[in-house]
Amino acid sequence: MRTAICERLGIEFPLFAFSHCRDVVAAVTNAGGFGVLGAVAYSPDQLDTELTWLDGQVGGRPYGVDVLVPGKVDPSAHDRRVHLMDAVPDRHRDFVTHLLAKYGVSAPGRPMTPVADEMGRRVTASGATGLIDVALKHRIGLIASALGPPPPEMVTRAREAGVPVAALVGTVEHARRQVAAGADLIVAQGTEAGGHTGEISTLVLVPQVVDAVGPVPVLAAGGIASGRQMAAAMALGAEGVWCGSVWLTTEEAETSPAVKRKMLAASSLDTVRSRSRTGKPARQLKSAWTEEWDAGQESPGPLGMPLQMLLAEGAMGRIVAAAEKGEPGALELANYFVGQVVGQLDRVRPARDVVYEMIAEFGDAVDRLRRLSE
Amino acid sequence: MRTAICERLGIEFPLFAFSHCRDVVAAVTNAGGFGVLGAVAYSPDQLDTELTWLDGQVGGRPYGVDVLVPGKVDPSAHDRRVHLMDAVPDRHRDFVTHLLAKYGVSAPGRPMTPVADEMGRRVTASGATGLIDVALKHRIGLIASALGPPPPEMVTRAREAGVPVAALVGTVEHARRQVAAGADLIVAQGTEAGGHTGEISTLVLVPQVVDAVGPVPVLAAGGIASGRQMAAAMALGAEGVWCGSVWLTTEEAETSPAVKRKMLAASSLDTVRSRSRTGKPARQLKSAWTEEWDAGQESPGPLGMPLQMLLAEGAMGRIVAAAEKGEPGALELANYFVGQVVGQLDRVRPARDVVYEMIAEFGDAVDRLRRLSE
Repeated sequence: MRTAICERLGIEFPLFAFSHCRDVVAAVTNAGGFGVLGAVAYSPDQLDTELTWLDGQVGGRPYGVDVLVPGKVDPSAHDRRVHLMDAVPDRHRDFVTHLLAKYGVSAPGRPMTPVADEMGRRVTASGATGLIDVALKHRIGLIASALGPPPPEMVTRAREAGVPVAALVGTVEHARRQVAAGADLIVAQGTEAGGHTGEISTLVLVPQVVDAVGPVPVLAAGGIASGRQMAAAMALGAEGVWCGSVWLTTEEAETSPAVKRKMLAASSLDTVRSRSRTGKPARQLKSAWTEEWDAGQESPGPLGMPLQMLLAEGAMGRIVAAAEKGEPGALELANYFVGQVVGQLDRVRPARDVVYEMIAEFGDAVDRLRRLSE
Repeated sequence: MRTAICERLGIEFPLFAFSHCRDVVAAVTNAGGFGVLGAVAYSPDQLDTELTWLDGQVGGRPYGVDVLVPGKVDPSAHDRRVHLMDAVPDRHRDFVTHLLAKYGVSAPGRPMTPVADEMGRRVTASGATGLIDVALKHRIGLIASALGPPPPEMVTRAREAGVPVAALVGTVEHARRQVAAGADLIVAQGTEAGGHTGEISTLVLVPQVVDAVGPVPVLAAGGIASGRQMAAAMALGAEGVWCGSVWLTTEEAETSPAVKRKMLAASSLDTVRSRSRTGKPARQLKSAWTEEWDAGQESPGPLGMPLQMLLAEGAMGRIVAAAEKGEPGALELANYFVGQVVGQLDRVRPARDVVYEMIAEFGDAVDRLRRLSE
């Protein structure tokens, strides 16, 4: 395909695959798309290992790395003298303990403090820097910032390395701010997307962002898991699409099997934008976890980012482990970030086949439009 | 254009314009689209007058009528022995009185009871029948049911008259139910739409509905106010589009000038799905009215339909009259149903020009897609 972004990045089909799973990233890149590895779960050393593996898989084809750089974080997250978990109020810890007991979650947890400290720091601007340093040592074709404008350091280093910077936005104003901060590529993400998301739908957001930031290229995200949806996004003026949810039920995905089954069974009504997993509104599977935090009588209400994320990640690790053993209460609680397209995902496929089907369906959709308008 | 629905209804361009304003309906129909008059605000006699006027304007070109038939209504609405307004609890009346005082709304109100009784009964299944009888006496090309499956009587009478029945849906399950109830055309409406709307975005909903009810034709609604958005909707498999919000800021629209100015200034973040105007979730401009009902400390919470609608319509009549006089409190409260596309609406245009611009931009969007995929 001939979009400007295809030429700039050297790809055949402007389908960007965001995944935390290196196998998905490799499969999409090798199928002619562009895989983007979500790096937030990795330490700098782990990221180095993953990217070295990827370099060996993709034969020089381009892939990218996504780091999570929130605009505002709880100030305590910046203080290396304290354990981040110490900043979590007792009421909130107690509520989690109560939830695990109420739903009979039996699996023993890992000690949360060191994991939480490491993880919390990685989602601060200074923490993300370590990941960016590692990423730029590899042959990456794109570096993305999932929350808030890219920090000036990130832009400077990426520019020096000749690597374009992408930024996710949910409003026109954020898009303008991202471009002013140096973003080379804007991902306009609608409310139907999984993970951190705004309120405006993709169909409404994308044309406004395209008009506001042109000639900076725009990718559409949210609500895209098929070739028809990709054609729709590009009819809006996008240069390509950024998909996350569709990979979660692929063969390669690291999604827990119990959560994958929930996704395959879910309808598009089974997601919710909730602050209960990260402290910021993020779309995810509705579950007893989201219900208890968002509407439960005893809920203390979610904390901000990153504290709620630390609390939730620690508990969710135990919950998912218990769900894998078939514990019914844990199965009720277990969830993961996913967009409204979850209602379309009804079977497990190799990631490569998803790409090929999207390419074929995209062509059919464009042909149909052409025939209708002749 | 060559969609099946164009051929069936005898139109050139499958752009359906829902409006309560007969001038918009006539302008769109005469420009090659298909105007649909929202009939809920009319008595059967008034509707007869409007349709007689329309018949004289459109020279035999097709137009439609939309009635609001909710699936479930407050049982008291069916009881002709009682005044519907008597079913509104004192707490709720008092809250409205309090709001009008708090915001200094000075305009005298019409006596609410007779208006409310008439209006409330029209949104019941039996009340809608009177409107349907009138509509079928005119040369209408479509009859639509905006809420819930069309009543069996409506389907039977429309079939006898050779008039297709359209039904609005927000989920795949509702679409299946509507087809089973006899709908000939499904309007799949995303959450970004104005008025009564579900939770699933247009981009996610439309392909699922198309796959579920084919070969029944599907129109896309929600988030569509430009040719690019129309092309996107049709890439998803829709046979045409159903637009409402875009007409509200046209020259012809009956929208109150004060509310029109709010719409022209609004961004796509300035709408909310709220039960505060009808008792069912309906997208509308965020205003002090929605804030006070949905998040105000003293709010008794909205009633069901139709009682909340009666209460809100009575108050909003006074509010809008006061807003027209420039009263600042009334301007804060005033609002109307509108979708997220309100952020795109920044100038007043004749409805005909909106149609022509959509036709031109649709062509450009299809051409761009074709070039990109060559």
